[in-house]
Amino acid sequence: MSPSKIVLLIIDGVGGLPHHETGETELESARKPNLNRIARDSLCGLIDPVGPGITPGSAPGHLAIFGYNPVKYNIGRGVVEALGIDLELKPEDIVARGNFCIVDDQGIITDRRAGRLSTDKNIELCRLLENITVDGAEISVVPVKEHRFVLILRGKALSPELGDSDPQQAGLAPKKIEPLSPQAQKTARIANEFVSQARNRLRHLPAANMVLLRGFSRRPDIPSIPEIYKLKPAAIATYPMYRGLARLVGMQVLPGGEGITEQLDNLRRNYADYDFFFIHFKSTDARGEDGNFWAKVQAIEELDNAIPGLLSLDPDVLIVTGDHSTPATLAGHSWHPVPFMLKSRWCRPDNVVEFSEQACLAGGMGRFQATEIMPLAMANALKLDKFGA
Amino acid sequence: MSPSKIVLLIIDGVGGLPHHETGETELESARKPNLNRIARDSLCGLIDPVGPGITPGSAPGHLAIFGYNPVKYNIGRGVVEALGIDLELKPEDIVARGNFCIVDDQGIITDRRAGRLSTDKNIELCRLLENITVDGAEISVVPVKEHRFVLILRGKALSPELGDSDPQQAGLAPKKIEPLSPQAQKTARIANEFVSQARNRLRHLPAANMVLLRGFSRRPDIPSIPEIYKLKPAAIATYPMYRGLARLVGMQVLPGGEGITEQLDNLRRNYADYDFFFIHFKSTDARGEDGNFWAKVQAIEELDNAIPGLLSLDPDVLIVTGDHSTPATLAGHSWHPVPFMLKSRWCRPDNVVEFSEQACLAGGMGRFQATEIMPLAMANALKLDKFGA
Repeated sequence: MSPSKIVLLIIDGVGGLPHHETGETELESARKPNLNRIARDSLCGLIDPVGPGITPGSAPGHLAIFGYNPVKYNIGRGVVEALGIDLELKPEDIVARGNFCIVDDQGIITDRRAGRLSTDKNIELCRLLENITVDGAEISVVPVKEHRFVLILRGKALSPELGDSDPQQAGLAPKKIEPLSPQAQKTARIANEFVSQARNRLRHLPAANMVLLRGFSRRPDIPSIPEIYKLKPAAIATYPMYRGLARLVGMQVLPGGEGITEQLDNLRRNYADYDFFFIHFKSTDARGEDGNFWAKVQAIEELDNAIPGLLSLDPDVLIVTGDHSTPATLAGHSWHPVPFMLKSRWCRPDNVVEFSEQACLAGGMGRFQATEIMPLAMANALKLDKFGA
Repeated sequence: MSPSKIVLLIIDGVGGLPHHETGETELESARKPNLNRIARDSLCGLIDPVGPGITPGSAPGHLAIFGYNPVKYNIGRGVVEALGIDLELKPEDIVARGNFCIVDDQGIITDRRAGRLSTDKNIELCRLLENITVDGAEISVVPVKEHRFVLILRGKALSPELGDSDPQQAGLAPKKIEPLSPQAQKTARIANEFVSQARNRLRHLPAANMVLLRGFSRRPDIPSIPEIYKLKPAAIATYPMYRGLARLVGMQVLPGGEGITEQLDNLRRNYADYDFFFIHFKSTDARGEDGNFWAKVQAIEELDNAIPGLLSLDPDVLIVTGDHSTPATLAGHSWHPVPFMLKSRWCRPDNVVEFSEQACLAGGMGRFQATEIMPLAMANALKLDKFGA
């Protein structure tokens, strides 16, 4: 333990691909003098969150940066969905991601998302299902957004080792939920009984007449950042999923605020009380997912404008990177490695003077695994002892 | 096996950090035409001895370069201490690092190092302890330097799986030595009995009235370099610790001499009789640990002056690197990767023309794990067969 402070700024989906007209990526296209100034004083590189060619979801992308092997600590779809609505899960809860869907008279799925029904309608349907009772488990059905909900099973001797009912394509019937191990038989019976009762209650509704379940899972038993690193970590994120992930690894979740300026205000307000801060900037990813190249460029410039407020705190270690690339040209997450920079008094700066994919490639870290970031952060904060005599 | 010869020159702690006035590292500040000449003809890179962010002790730093996974072959503190005074350990010996210390009337440690008492006093105190007898083990107490000694337990069915008695801070009482496995109970009893008798003999002395033990360990069972690589290796080192490490991995330890010129004389004298030579240059690390930037620069220049004597032997493979960085600005070992170069007729030279941290980053090996050096050395010496058909 030491008083030095580490700030980790994750710019969601920051990595990109060249625009077909300019040949420049979103980062290369943005006016970003403040990010470039950090690059000048930093150790730079490109991270692979999972591995070459592997496109990370948001959970593995973040977990890798937090130092967890994202393949070992694979977080189930159900848990991710629950984190996304700020649900506090108990260690024994079994959760699944649910879809409201439409099936025809023969029970064949015709629309897996029931036309992305409105969230209001979703809330109404969840209310219809919430008092379903099945022997052996307490059941909750929590609306998310559009066609999505979370099913929670709470009870003794349950197991998440279940197959999906969602066949992931239209034209097929929902599958019976199969136990994937002998100790999951009871849970499979409960889940199938829930589906059957839900079907009965929805059968004659026009908006959606069936449910699909997938990603049965349980909160992973994951060693916490305070345990592993003896840090007192805090998270400042505007989206529930990232707050949930942060809570999962033992961070204190602080108020997020509406945007980066408010987030940095909250950082300043809480700066004395923690020694590790995770700041999550979302809109780069959102604009990339929209396929809107210039809106993503603008999001980067908006972030850059806020950087002086961050630098004024003069953290001992400042890390700026992303959880994955979201090239606007692909309109989705991608496998491309992500620019990284680490600034500290002890970082041994390289010759990189710009925060971009090309420039960071020539950095002192070269291309490297995101799980190496935490040891590097700890070393630069002088929080690690020597290994071996 | 082939007649070609590999020379591995380890410049201890050679990597550095920029001087705050010049912005140049120790290597960048030194006049070193001969090292630069080697770089021009070499394949260059930067090595991580253990991993990013991990500061290696001298033992893991060297073992990694010798090709051993330094986490798997973790050498205990007791063994390192014994190697450091040229003690020949038997495979079954249990060794611990000892401190003479001072405790108050309540048995609380007030000085873990007894004011770094003189080595003469240390020798005197060890003599007081040397005829302690405990059933089940033969006991030796060997002075090292100042407050440090080595305890050796030799006997049947002993185990090194013991906790420390040294709590590593003043203000606490020495801990009882705990067995960390059932088969270590006997050894724990012996070690605690030794401590108790030592306490009785020292109790009324002003210089030191108690002992602390830590790092119980046994010489690791490590496959030797002759076994793994069919090499006939020799070491030329001036410091006992490095000679001990070399012996541990099966090298013949040749006379070291007083400095690099004598070491290279000894290399020349023995050049016909071995095919692998490890030359250890110490003073770069020592000056770095002193925090003396310009003295470290001078040590690099002194080494550079001796290089023509090495090149005149024209080894088939010449490797120059360090076991870790020791930036003078940090006055200690650090985690920063270490410049590396390999010169051979077959090395495929890159564009690097200077032996420094920045320059080597752009080398043909980029940043890489130190354990990859030995296969590379073997390949360049044309001592390896093709893998697979």
